[in-house]
Amino acid sequence: MSTAASARKLRMGMVGGGRGAFIGAIHRSAAALDGRIELVCGAFSSDPACALASGADLFLPPARCYESLAEMLRKESALPIGQRMDFLSIVTPNHLHAPMATAAVKAGFPVICDKPLAISLREALDLRAAVRAAAVPFALTHNYTGYPLVKEARALVRSGRIGTVRKVVVEYPQGWLATRIEATGHRQASWRTDPARAGLAGCIGDIGTHAENLAEYVTGLRIRELAADLTSFVDGRQLDDDANVLLRFEGGAKGALIASQIAVGEENNLSLRVWGSGGGIEWHQREPNSLWLKSADQPAQLLRTGTAGLSPAAAAATRLPAGHPEGYLEAFANIYRAFAVQVAAHLDGVSPPTHALDFPTIDDGVRGMAFIEAVVASSCANAAWTPLASDAAPSAMASTQPARAVRGER
Amino acid sequence: MSTAASARKLRMGMVGGGRGAFIGAIHRSAAALDGRIELVCGAFSSDPACALASGADLFLPPARCYESLAEMLRKESALPIGQRMDFLSIVTPNHLHAPMATAAVKAGFPVICDKPLAISLREALDLRAAVRAAAVPFALTHNYTGYPLVKEARALVRSGRIGTVRKVVVEYPQGWLATRIEATGHRQASWRTDPARAGLAGCIGDIGTHAENLAEYVTGLRIRELAADLTSFVDGRQLDDDANVLLRFEGGAKGALIASQIAVGEENNLSLRVWGSGGGIEWHQREPNSLWLKSADQPAQLLRTGTAGLSPAAAAATRLPAGHPEGYLEAFANIYRAFAVQVAAHLDGVSPPTHALDFPTIDDGVRGMAFIEAVVASSCANAAWTPLASDAAPSAMASTQPARAVRGER
Amino acid sequence: MSTAASARKLRMGMVGGGRGAFIGAIHRSAAALDGRIELVCGAFSSDPACALASGADLFLPPARCYESLAEMLRKESALPIGQRMDFLSIVTPNHLHAPMATAAVKAGFPVICDKPLAISLREALDLRAAVRAAAVPFALTHNYTGYPLVKEARALVRSGRIGTVRKVVVEYPQGWLATRIEATGHRQASWRTDPARAGLAGCIGDIGTHAENLAEYVTGLRIRELAADLTSFVDGRQLDDDANVLLRFEGGAKGALIASQIAVGEENNLSLRVWGSGGGIEWHQREPNSLWLKSADQPAQLLRTGTAGLSPAAAAATRLPAGHPEGYLEAFANIYRAFAVQVAAHLDGVSPPTHALDFPTIDDGVRGMAFIEAVVASSCANAAWTPLASDAAPSAMASTQPARAVRGER
Amino acid sequence: MSTAASARKLRMGMVGGGRGAFIGAIHRSAAALDGRIELVCGAFSSDPACALASGADLFLPPARCYESLAEMLRKESALPIGQRMDFLSIVTPNHLHAPMATAAVKAGFPVICDKPLAISLREALDLRAAVRAAAVPFALTHNYTGYPLVKEARALVRSGRIGTVRKVVVEYPQGWLATRIEATGHRQASWRTDPARAGLAGCIGDIGTHAENLAEYVTGLRIRELAADLTSFVDGRQLDDDANVLLRFEGGAKGALIASQIAVGEENNLSLRVWGSGGGIEWHQREPNSLWLKSADQPAQLLRTGTAGLSPAAAAATRLPAGHPEGYLEAFANIYRAFAVQVAAHLDGVSPPTHALDFPTIDDGVRGMAFIEAVVASSCANAAWTPLASDAAPSAMASTQPARAVRGER
Repeated sequence: MSTAASARKLRMGMVGGGRGAFIGAIHRSAAALDGRIELVCGAFSSDPACALASGADLFLPPARCYESLAEMLRKESALPIGQRMDFLSIVTPNHLHAPMATAAVKAGFPVICDKPLAISLREALDLRAAVRAAAVPFALTHNYTGYPLVKEARALVRSGRIGTVRKVVVEYPQGWLATRIEATGHRQASWRTDPARAGLAGCIGDIGTHAENLAEYVTGLRIRELAADLTSFVDGRQLDDDANVLLRFEGGAKGALIASQIAVGEENNLSLRVWGSGGGIEWHQREPNSLWLKSADQPAQLLRTGTAGLSPAAAAATRLPAGHPEGYLEAFANIYRAFAVQVAAHLDGVSPPTHALDFPTIDDGVRGMAFIEAVVASSCANAAWTPLASDAAPSAMASTQPARAVRGER
Repeated sequence: MSTAASARKLRMGMVGGGRGAFIGAIHRSAAALDGRIELVCGAFSSDPACALASGADLFLPPARCYESLAEMLRKESALPIGQRMDFLSIVTPNHLHAPMATAAVKAGFPVICDKPLAISLREALDLRAAVRAAAVPFALTHNYTGYPLVKEARALVRSGRIGTVRKVVVEYPQGWLATRIEATGHRQASWRTDPARAGLAGCIGDIGTHAENLAEYVTGLRIRELAADLTSFVDGRQLDDDANVLLRFEGGAKGALIASQIAVGEENNLSLRVWGSGGGIEWHQREPNSLWLKSADQPAQLLRTGTAGLSPAAAAATRLPAGHPEGYLEAFANIYRAFAVQVAAHLDGVSPPTHALDFPTIDDGVRGMAFIEAVVASSCANAAWTPLASDAAPSAMASTQPARAVRGER
Repeated sequence: MSTAASARKLRMGMVGGGRGAFIGAIHRSAAALDGRIELVCGAFSSDPACALASGADLFLPPARCYESLAEMLRKESALPIGQRMDFLSIVTPNHLHAPMATAAVKAGFPVICDKPLAISLREALDLRAAVRAAAVPFALTHNYTGYPLVKEARALVRSGRIGTVRKVVVEYPQGWLATRIEATGHRQASWRTDPARAGLAGCIGDIGTHAENLAEYVTGLRIRELAADLTSFVDGRQLDDDANVLLRFEGGAKGALIASQIAVGEENNLSLRVWGSGGGIEWHQREPNSLWLKSADQPAQLLRTGTAGLSPAAAAATRLPAGHPEGYLEAFANIYRAFAVQVAAHLDGVSPPTHALDFPTIDDGVRGMAFIEAVVASSCANAAWTPLASDAAPSAMASTQPARAVRGER
Repeated sequence: MSTAASARKLRMGMVGGGRGAFIGAIHRSAAALDGRIELVCGAFSSDPACALASGADLFLPPARCYESLAEMLRKESALPIGQRMDFLSIVTPNHLHAPMATAAVKAGFPVICDKPLAISLREALDLRAAVRAAAVPFALTHNYTGYPLVKEARALVRSGRIGTVRKVVVEYPQGWLATRIEATGHRQASWRTDPARAGLAGCIGDIGTHAENLAEYVTGLRIRELAADLTSFVDGRQLDDDANVLLRFEGGAKGALIASQIAVGEENNLSLRVWGSGGGIEWHQREPNSLWLKSADQPAQLLRTGTAGLSPAAAAATRLPAGHPEGYLEAFANIYRAFAVQVAAHLDGVSPPTHALDFPTIDDGVRGMAFIEAVVASSCANAAWTPLASDAAPSAMASTQPARAVRGER
């Protein structure tokens, strides 16, 4: 007799993330942190030897280290519930996200997938249809919204604390692609600058979409149209490595989105500033446990993770007392933790508690792809104002050619 | 026999800046700081009683307190050199800058003028012609370039320390106009939001032009074209109170300029970030004695005012040992100090030393007006890319109507 | 046939840390983070119902949830290797640390124990003797030394980068005990201010000892003597809640240690500054991924977690790319990870790799108790200079009465 | 008929501050900033040629450039009021402060003097008697208390906003004397490390006394007794270059004072933290326009110079709108401005307005000397608790030998 999922640890399978990969280890730590999820199987690499060795590194028995996702889905499905994997984590390069997620949900497995969701809006919409048809939980790891004070920022905006939102400035500067390291064999750089594996955008797809997701999450507003100026500063690079974008939101707010991978000396300086008619907020990933709340005619306040008086959403996302810094992994783990609650409810056939739904979903993924395509299309049209496609249907720009998107910009 | 100007204090006259004004006191302190300049006369107000009272506050004899600039120019010209004012400081609202400066230079007086130079590019060009014809020194108080570390930033870029400039982000957010305080009798707000006295732009003319000047000063690059989205967020306000602008520089660098007067809780947070192929710099007026210098694969360095190893230009602009903060007035005073050297050389009939030429001139003023007009024109055309007018001739957009500029934006 | 420990996950038992406790959950997350350690059993509470419920929360079978440490040691010892717990984590209040650790090591189990090691130096020395006799691995969770940049700071000092150390300022201010919350039923405050459960010191034992450990770890110097002024500011409190201490180190360096639990508004602002003859370093837990390196006549450098050029020790303690903040849990997990390597080697009967020995040991614990007793003795003697007891033998002051320690201070 | 002082600029004479000096130029800028004070004469150097050249640099006529203070006092006294100097500014090395101030006040001139007041408490008390007898205004330039937010901090404490003060940590680290630069001909270092010219203390007299003055000014509390550990880290140096001091204040507050001139890489990082039973404040000279106000269970607030809601004392000390940084010179100028009001009232024979009395006086100077002597005496006695001498009479320790004070410390 199988145990209810809510009464046991959840079993996770993983595709991608073998030796030498980057994001797979992040996902595993995030999943492990709260002691609720255990890794039970994986298809860690398309190279069988690497797949096996990677599994051994993770203390998995050889029988649960598969050579392909197809094999994993088939064999895991054959195991009894309570032994087989309860959900799949997808941590491959971008171009494999949608096909693999589609296969998994069709096999009935809940999926948690790295971003971006797909390499085109078309593909994203098809995946959404598959997820809806399968009726399984699906999470996308737009991890930055997992920070307690990002949740606090959202709660402050919702509460009306800063009035009507007027202006949004969101940034994500990095410097690691300031030279052509993809030509030196750098593994991450190699696929992230390759249209075949990364999709039609570089910088804007890799990090710009995080900025977009953060801005919409916190403000609760949707970008209506944008005017984007993409550049590929490094000679020989096919995809954009820099973006300056004007934003217009539904309801009249305006803003700018600045993303770059050639900002020498920058790390991962995601930041967000929002000003409304009655106040402002400011958050920087670099010191994620601080959130500025600004008011007219009052001193600015520094809200801090773990202190009294924060919103329930922020408090629920916090593990430590104030002053003991929480970081990127904890924010990432908040997505896994919330997703796990939903997966357990799904397996038990019950409704998840409302609070467990605070994680990025397939809809965030579709939205992100619409954003990427709008940015590329706008930039191809010399920064013409371009609407974001509605959820229902991709715009005609879905066929945009990535290489052309940036070549004309300089 | 008159004393050589270089052997005595320089005598300053002032127009504007009477009781209740703001910027006049700043100019007086900046002029006084180094003990080189003394205020000897003024036409502080168009109200005779106020003019006299203001002069008395400043320990001036009634005979040197005039009722109009015309009277001041006439009567001062009649005094012997060494007694009459050596130069004029103009600190009136914007619409009077050009007419008064024109009158003064035609009367042979060097002029130091608050920014912006004029209320249209056409007017600015006419003034430049008058200055050139009169062959007198002329300074414009784009004061932020007077900070030691702004000069250091410029020296770093010039030296090639950060390689070829690729990306520029310059910002000037304020929050003081987030509500319609001009309707409450607020004196500053009243004229700054009035097209008749402020010119065709609000936020972009008042502070956006400082940002433009800072970016061009530090990078040594000129903005080639821009795409601007101006907004007037506060109901009933005629001029823009917010701006998001995409920038393209000569030579291929790109960037964004963000200015706002509705960013609630912001003070005067002018900041500049520049990234080149080999490094980056970051400066914030809020802590003006710190300058970040970033490199690939090396820790960021925090350059500090007054420390060893800075450029001669930065060192010359510094008055104190490191750790004793210098501020806004000292930066402002650097313009007065440099201008005084040039005025003294002019009065003595000799050439000024090269280092004394490091202050904003009539050309910066013309450039600023070209910028303002380009921004307004672009915004009127729904953020269409708009070139900055060349110095020689204003573009057709000089006739842009300010009220229309922002009304269409929301 | 049993599997070698190095080829499987390590099994952890825990004593303390049931529902309502604080530090137990921290230890569990730290242990879980790297996927190397799994919790298999616990004696979570002296209350049998709570013990069982706490185990169920953690997905443990009832058979592995014990009512006492004695029961756990007996029953786990009876299980085969590869099934029984491989080591014990002790997360009880202070007064139980030494007795429980003694029992565990005598039963042959490696121990990782929360700090302080004991409630007196006498007890600490006895425990050390037991650990040495049992020849099992022993770790003490002075977690702050687990931060990558604390390790970098130590490496910088060792390398001679800042010359001969001259001055050390270490601080740990908190504000949570600024009022008498122990009288309101606050569980943490209750035992931490109770001499019977916390030992002879309050603030200095709870957080001052972390500061001492950090200072000695980074500088590699030992405190030779100290002059301490302890205070109990809150009426009715028996133990100190504030400390100012002058330090003299072996070799001539001097310094100050400042700790407080009545510093209203402070979180856990542990910080360290060290100056040597050729440079200085500065680190704050609040932003633990930044480390200032200062030099004469050179700009200060901001070293950052995860960047190129850091020491092997810092790099080994880092999980993420630069700019993705790591926090308290990751630092804590570094102790568990290093300890796990040593435990695995112990179980396999081999020598652990050298790098695995970089965690706090029983000797740090003895040192901490000598520090606490010296501080209390000095304060009782009106801040007289008091030597730290040598490792070999406790000083006569080991019998100091805690209540008297602070009462005379005001 | 002479003009009332209040209706004209005040005329300042200066002794010291010739070419090559440091602090003289600071005083002149501070005096000039507000346009209220003009320099009319000086005895800038004991070298007649330097005195004359220095005066010429400052645009003074040769007839007002004297070769000695005695000559200046004699000749200026002979000039009519309204032409002769109204007060004297003393900016010589320390050992000349008291003799020159004594001479000036006996001649009837108000004096503003650089700190420390004297080179011994005995001398300071004698000077105070002379000042009282002469009944002339006297100011001491403990300039750091001139910052607007230092005044705000004082106002906050006075208002009860942070409750009863419990703990004070005040620091002044510098690094410029980390090597023996006095042996290299460095002018400032030469006299500041020479007991004959600097007095009985080095670091503690030069900067430690600023820290003491700041702490007592803000808290309104007097240090009752202290335990000091002075060191002279640099070989061959006679005076202390480093200090760690435990403080006990009247009323039960405790604290620490840390000062150093060997803290490599530090500039002039004066900082103050005060915690009371209901809140805390934190201020750093490095960013002097920010003041943290901390509370239990509320977010910390960042008070900023020039914003609404600050105390009248802070507002009166502010010249610019918020966000336009004010610095060291402006704080210094606040002392001159307040002193000028008192001098004008004195010359007019009226009482000054109360607000004009907010500057450091002869009493602060006496207090500072008592502090210095207590620190040196304590350190000579191996950090024994030492009371500060009462104002009425110096303690027996006034005869302390400086060289012995530090030699015994290592």
